Amino acid sequence: MSKVRVSAFSISADGYGAGIEQSLEDPLGRRGEELHGWAFETQTFRTMFGQDGGSTGIDEGYAARSMAGLGAWIMGRNMFGPVRGPWPNHDWKGWWGPNPPYHVPVFVLTHHERPPLAMEGGTVFHFVTDGIESALDQARVAAGARDIRIGGGVETVRQYLAAQAIDELHIPVSPVLLGKGEALFAGLDLAALGYRVARQEAGENAVHLTIVRGD
Amino acid sequence: MSKVRVSAFSISADGYGAGIEQSLEDPLGRRGEELHGWAFETQTFRTMFGQDGGSTGIDEGYAARSMAGLGAWIMGRNMFGPVRGPWPNHDWKGWWGPNPPYHVPVFVLTHHERPPLAMEGGTVFHFVTDGIESALDQARVAAGARDIRIGGGVETVRQYLAAQAIDELHIPVSPVLLGKGEALFAGLDLAALGYRVARQEAGENAVHLTIVRGD
Repeated sequence: MSKVRVSAFSISADGYGAGIEQSLEDPLGRRGEELHGWAFETQTFRTMFGQDGGSTGIDEGYAARSMAGLGAWIMGRNMFGPVRGPWPNHDWKGWWGPNPPYHVPVFVLTHHERPPLAMEGGTVFHFVTDGIESALDQARVAAGARDIRIGGGVETVRQYLAAQAIDELHIPVSPVLLGKGEALFAGLDLAALGYRVARQEAGENAVHLTIVRGD
Repeated sequence: MSKVRVSAFSISADGYGAGIEQSLEDPLGRRGEELHGWAFETQTFRTMFGQDGGSTGIDEGYAARSMAGLGAWIMGRNMFGPVRGPWPNHDWKGWWGPNPPYHVPVFVLTHHERPPLAMEGGTVFHFVTDGIESALDQARVAAGARDIRIGGGVETVRQYLAAQAIDELHIPVSPVLLGKGEALFAGLDLAALGYRVARQEAGENAVHLTIVRGD
């Protein structure tokens, strides 16, 4: 059955999912890349970025599963790009070049309308201006029996958590302290929202939390 | 050399070191005991509470080290007991019965004076009314070459972290979501205070973070 899930969404040991001062040069915020050190070592992510080799252990298992069986993505506008406010033009086509690693429909949450954008390799960006529920409805139609992945960023994941719309989260905890940034869980009562830790497993370079909703 | 350290100070996967609504019946707050499930399984803690058996693996290693080589403890008044405001009398002698598990001087931070309290087994509670630095100075004299342990609770640990007075923290992360309570790291910029993760190791029932100050 189709699940709505968050996967490979890394946080620091002190709970931040992104650093401060996100920008064109620093899409994950200051020191945000350190959160993803575990992923950069894995075969799945190295292949995605056109590199050879990579690890094949526990971290790689999570990395591979994070990309498998997906029928649609949802992401916040800041994950799509650094442009804020109305689109000045349609030149910005995402961080990922002409052939993004999604290969399925991607629903981008924004307050500003823009026509769909078809990329090489099957990725089509759809810009959704009428809210997170509408994006999820559209993603369900697109995904069919496959899973829907909430890509990020922190604020988008938090909105879907608060709406109790996420079935499962895979949260790698990296052994770094950011000190400040966007906190994933702060002020969000996950227990009251029905979530629990199903598994806590150490990989080579991160500890992988699996959080699920329900018993 | 003597270290100032926090040991076996458990938090939830969402970052809480104690639950809400601490009381005589619930000294760790609601669901706070779930944070310590890993400890209750270990030989060290079972022995401390007069029980047989217990685990002897990775968790036990951390439990044993948490109690070894200590020359003094510092704790907040709420860790000493549920009494708030001026002491109505001297009847409350801690949560731990006539022979507490410390066996060294324990400096209790409080705004209300009270004479020292000698217990069986070498534990002497000293009530310190002139601040965290004074308590640390007194603990250093008492501990000599042995370590000083900041016992808790959350607010006491945060005050000593903000003062950059802690050399090392062992923080077990338990696979539970509290949803609310006292957050250990929120709003405290550990990176700017000079702290980093030295180690992240999975035990049988918790993941053990070791955080140190300095390079």
